[in-house]
Amino acid sequence: MNTPDPRLSINQATVKYADLATALRVTVDAGVQAIGLWREPVQEVGLATAASMLADSGLRFTTHCRSGFFTMPEGAARRASIDDNRIAIEEAATLAAAGAEGSTAILVLVAGGLPEGSRDLAGARERVRDAIGELAPDAAAAGVTLAIEPLHPMYASDRCVVSTLGQALDIAADFDPAVVGATVDTFHIWWDPDVLGQIARAGREGRIATYQVCDWRTPLPADVLLARHYPGDGVIDFASLTAAVEATGYDRDIEVEIFNEQIWATDPLLAVQRTAAGFAASVSPHLRARVAG
Amino acid sequence: MNTPDPRLSINQATVKYADLATALRVTVDAGVQAIGLWREPVQEVGLATAASMLADSGLRFTTHCRSGFFTMPEGAARRASIDDNRIAIEEAATLAAAGAEGSTAILVLVAGGLPEGSRDLAGARERVRDAIGELAPDAAAAGVTLAIEPLHPMYASDRCVVSTLGQALDIAADFDPAVVGATVDTFHIWWDPDVLGQIARAGREGRIATYQVCDWRTPLPADVLLARHYPGDGVIDFASLTAAVEATGYDRDIEVEIFNEQIWATDPLLAVQRTAAGFAASVSPHLRARVAG
Repeated sequence: MNTPDPRLSINQATVKYADLATALRVTVDAGVQAIGLWREPVQEVGLATAASMLADSGLRFTTHCRSGFFTMPEGAARRASIDDNRIAIEEAATLAAAGAEGSTAILVLVAGGLPEGSRDLAGARERVRDAIGELAPDAAAAGVTLAIEPLHPMYASDRCVVSTLGQALDIAADFDPAVVGATVDTFHIWWDPDVLGQIARAGREGRIATYQVCDWRTPLPADVLLARHYPGDGVIDFASLTAAVEATGYDRDIEVEIFNEQIWATDPLLAVQRTAAGFAASVSPHLRARVAG
Repeated sequence: MNTPDPRLSINQATVKYADLATALRVTVDAGVQAIGLWREPVQEVGLATAASMLADSGLRFTTHCRSGFFTMPEGAARRASIDDNRIAIEEAATLAAAGAEGSTAILVLVAGGLPEGSRDLAGARERVRDAIGELAPDAAAAGVTLAIEPLHPMYASDRCVVSTLGQALDIAADFDPAVVGATVDTFHIWWDPDVLGQIARAGREGRIATYQVCDWRTPLPADVLLARHYPGDGVIDFASLTAAVEATGYDRDIEVEIFNEQIWATDPLLAVQRTAAGFAASVSPHLRARVAG
């Protein structure tokens, strides 16, 4: 095994069936330096314990996944969502403080789909903006960046009404870039005719909270949520997308987050090693040359 | 059964397993006044016979579906595609001339996906523009409008690299609006944060060749090509989309084209009747009031 790219971060969803201890261990064992965590496995051990385990691992913490899901109209469900988002903000701050130097306090936000029985997409999108307006002061106080994630338009009705990077930036524009940014994930935006322009805009506006890579391949699986692949195994042109992100000055870690039943069925260390190999072949060549460390 | 909306046109794909004779018969029997045809069932009986059958039906002809598939680089396959597109143009002209008064000579173009082994999405998109440039003189000579159809981004890699109405309009902008327009299909564009703006733009630029309606519902079926539903059975807001199209002055027929295994398994007359009922409930209320005929 070659040494993994020093900017690679493993998103915990890539080894979904591993618990937190295992996810941290295989990431370290593979020689990867950073990890993005998910709320459920963190909550399974408790936040303080998770922070301690993360600190012991020596890994950088890159993002906390995921919160959001606040497209419903005002009422008890919306209040519960806002409250839960506030907990997620605290989790992100705590974990970022526990991670190694270079960790970032970023909370990924997936907006949620259309409320049951609703056809009012524009209204749902407005409520995303409203929710972020409510949460922004908490995020600012905690030193956390909310990273609005546009999801592929095939998820617009049932998972995320934010469908393009441009739309995410339009929502973020109302807020301080240190507090509200965007998640730039190749899988979700590669098809966009304006993707390179919107990445450049995101850079100019200081909004690239996190850059994430995985690949797109057809035919899609029966559950289209699980359609993500190792970088290089599909049709996404990581050269142009990565060069565009690098050109904005983005120089932080790059996550690989893969939802894929076959990859989840792989031994988690092997899945991390394969992720690192795909990243090295498909993404690393397009990163700026660095001074040897 | 109430009388179907006079502007409803049944796209033949909605009754995919019906041959041409059956498709024409059930459309007439349901009291629908217009039909859009597909190339394969037309070619099955031969163009002259198809034109004669269409004329005998008394139906208006609204679109010919479909041609395109010209994203490959220069070579024998690309030449074969261009030649076949020229045949499709002739078919559209012949059928439009055979249809009842008010028929339109519109050929729907589906661009095609990434060529096998390619990740060059921008290049494939440029080759769409080049192909339309080659075909435009033939279309103009035949009096046919080429209707570029943006397909949902979930088809960008394997079926159609034109993914938004805005992108279709950008391609069309190089050409005479009488010769190159766009297919505005709710299923493909409903998710677009800029859909209303792009419909208005399409109207201003004279590019709405055809307006087509069907619905989006999740979970998507295993084959995402077959995810289309009767108007009203999903989450698309036909009120805002239809009002936007009407506001441009579009006053022609509106097709319903549904790919759905369950609907294809329905008796074709019943499928047409159900289509008419869905259209009457979900689309007709948003059409301009008309002087009683």
